[in-house]
Amino acid sequence: MSLIVQKYGGTSVGNPERIRNVAERIAEWRRRGDRVVVVVSAMSGVTDSLIKLAREVCAEPAEREMDMLLATGEQTTISLLAMALHAIGIPAVSLTGAQAGIVTDGRHTKAKIANLTPNQVKRHLADGAVVIVAGFQGQTMEGQITTLGRGGSDLTAIAIAAAVQAEVCQIYTDVDGVYTADPRVVPNATKIQEIAYDEMLELASAGAKVMQARAVEFAKKFNVRFEVRSSFNNNPGTIVKAETKSMEQVVVRGVSVEKNQAKVTISGVPDRPGIAAKLFQTIAEAGVNVDMIVQNVSQSGEADITFTLHRDDVKKANNITASISELSRARAVTVQEGIAKLSVVGIGMRSHSGVASSLFVALSEQGINIQMISTSEIKITVVIDEARSAEAERAVHDKFGLNVAR
Amino acid sequence: MSLIVQKYGGTSVGNPERIRNVAERIAEWRRRGDRVVVVVSAMSGVTDSLIKLAREVCAEPAEREMDMLLATGEQTTISLLAMALHAIGIPAVSLTGAQAGIVTDGRHTKAKIANLTPNQVKRHLADGAVVIVAGFQGQTMEGQITTLGRGGSDLTAIAIAAAVQAEVCQIYTDVDGVYTADPRVVPNATKIQEIAYDEMLELASAGAKVMQARAVEFAKKFNVRFEVRSSFNNNPGTIVKAETKSMEQVVVRGVSVEKNQAKVTISGVPDRPGIAAKLFQTIAEAGVNVDMIVQNVSQSGEADITFTLHRDDVKKANNITASISELSRARAVTVQEGIAKLSVVGIGMRSHSGVASSLFVALSEQGINIQMISTSEIKITVVIDEARSAEAERAVHDKFGLNVAR
Repeated sequence: MSLIVQKYGGTSVGNPERIRNVAERIAEWRRRGDRVVVVVSAMSGVTDSLIKLAREVCAEPAEREMDMLLATGEQTTISLLAMALHAIGIPAVSLTGAQAGIVTDGRHTKAKIANLTPNQVKRHLADGAVVIVAGFQGQTMEGQITTLGRGGSDLTAIAIAAAVQAEVCQIYTDVDGVYTADPRVVPNATKIQEIAYDEMLELASAGAKVMQARAVEFAKKFNVRFEVRSSFNNNPGTIVKAETKSMEQVVVRGVSVEKNQAKVTISGVPDRPGIAAKLFQTIAEAGVNVDMIVQNVSQSGEADITFTLHRDDVKKANNITASISELSRARAVTVQEGIAKLSVVGIGMRSHSGVASSLFVALSEQGINIQMISTSEIKITVVIDEARSAEAERAVHDKFGLNVAR
Repeated sequence: MSLIVQKYGGTSVGNPERIRNVAERIAEWRRRGDRVVVVVSAMSGVTDSLIKLAREVCAEPAEREMDMLLATGEQTTISLLAMALHAIGIPAVSLTGAQAGIVTDGRHTKAKIANLTPNQVKRHLADGAVVIVAGFQGQTMEGQITTLGRGGSDLTAIAIAAAVQAEVCQIYTDVDGVYTADPRVVPNATKIQEIAYDEMLELASAGAKVMQARAVEFAKKFNVRFEVRSSFNNNPGTIVKAETKSMEQVVVRGVSVEKNQAKVTISGVPDRPGIAAKLFQTIAEAGVNVDMIVQNVSQSGEADITFTLHRDDVKKANNITASISELSRARAVTVQEGIAKLSVVGIGMRSHSGVASSLFVALSEQGINIQMISTSEIKITVVIDEARSAEAERAVHDKFGLNVAR
């Protein structure tokens, strides 16, 4: 008999029939004798229609009022799921974020959890009920309703799992785990059985969007072991947990590709202190989100600086090339689209050498040119031609033998 | 500069355009320098679709979970209305029932207000904001979300008006006041300028469904003067307030007709103590809602008992005629549909005689037969043939000179 926390996303509870299915699924765990806390998102589509309604009455809705509005989405789901459990004879109680004891700071629409005292959760569990908590929301010390921003329901589930010291935290989603690569691109990609928090974080930041990075960071901080699995089948998913010695034996855990990237190259920048600072301040003020930054110094006392950005920000970048050029006294500023970022991630890299060279060999064997390179302790990222990214993903996946399940 | 409480029903805030209209209306009051608290219902149709959703997951949803679900309806409206006010430059803050300090007992779906400490309402008013409160909802001392049942939003408005000591409480609805009779039936019916709480209550119980009786009772108890008016025009409405000496000069304030009634006559009941008690216990247990009861004793030691009920309960009544007959040793039990109740109401009746006889004359002049009579201190009700009720309403309205506005 375990205490488990389960989280179901918007697709899993997207209509009354799916809500009844989720209730059946919860009932199965309960029949084994488990005590269950369930965190749910708004039914898919609900949040979008609420946002649409808001836009119809106000061009720029205040964040406090958006929170008041959006919080109704999860509140609807929790009550419906409680009813669906009652319908099959399972005692259940729904709780809003506030009732579940989730206290946040006051940053509306992107609040951070400050404190969690799940007294009501514990009391209803002790009474034998399944406790259903509204994800994505909380309240401030002063009783203002807040929402946690993107990935907020995952965060709620992990925070509650930490607070009630659950044995298991299951994140149900529409994929059945984390894969060694995107299975739509790499047909022999395999499901990863176990992955370390840091690997999950690097994969998330590299574009593998199973979960938002902040929920994973929270889990890492409070050492909450969780499982990403599908709400549409019973397959075991991927366990995300603190790294162990044995995990290091796998050098590369997965490959990730992020498309729709662009890069800006500033060539011939005089190599003087303070230039980069001024430059990136200007870029930030223009609202351009910079991702990778690479600089190398030439012997002539001039530097080339290149950074990548999302294609959506290219227009903003184009608007400021003249001022960048003037500021940095560069010889040329060029903006180039049509590139992709390919990353290999694995904590094993720390203790294994030769990963970078294997990656470069894999790409060169396909005749794919590397335009930029950036490395962290457990990740190597290269920028390549977007048109060849699928080919590259398959070649790299093969090179590191990721098609063998482990 | 006054402090006013306004309440808008579901039709008045039924879509984004109407919400923007209500915002404009509030803005007008504010421009005069008034401080405004607004109470709103769920957008029309929202509550019904939530109930439909609930039924799709559970045949008999638990009342606690229904409250959790339905409370989202008003929460949606308050945030949208706050946004609509922001859009036209008016500072506004939305508050749930709980945040507004509405504490209720624990009777889910029909909770009673136990306590109201509107600290947040007062604080935001002091800051210069329009305060928008979710009607129909509150929370228990233990933090459970509750709803107040039918007419709950009117109740919220009147309770808040009492708690903040508002100068005016305006109940905006889709009619522009209380009329001397139903204007669809009596073309020369006039809008009543002022009406006493008790008259409003008697008219409500007689079928004039402008407001639920419990909101009026609450207003009477706390002496909250309020105005029923239309949200679609700027006409002055009807003021409902404590009675004054001058109000007694009008003998009859209004005529009200309730159709879809039926009556059950139990003839030849032995005139012994305890028979009526047993009888009406049986009837109550069968779920029949009894309205008027009339009994007259015959000289032979037998009584005839007649009671009225809504037509919807006729089937239930038919099911128990045999047991009624046996219980009461009556000679006959008959159920008759197709009747209507006509009432004249006015506090002036207390000090004026001859009202009953004028009523009877008016009906006899039309050749309309009176089947039952019942009186209270400020109301006389007769039961007549439903087919002739419109004719009767017009004749009685004329007889008491109600076509003259006053």
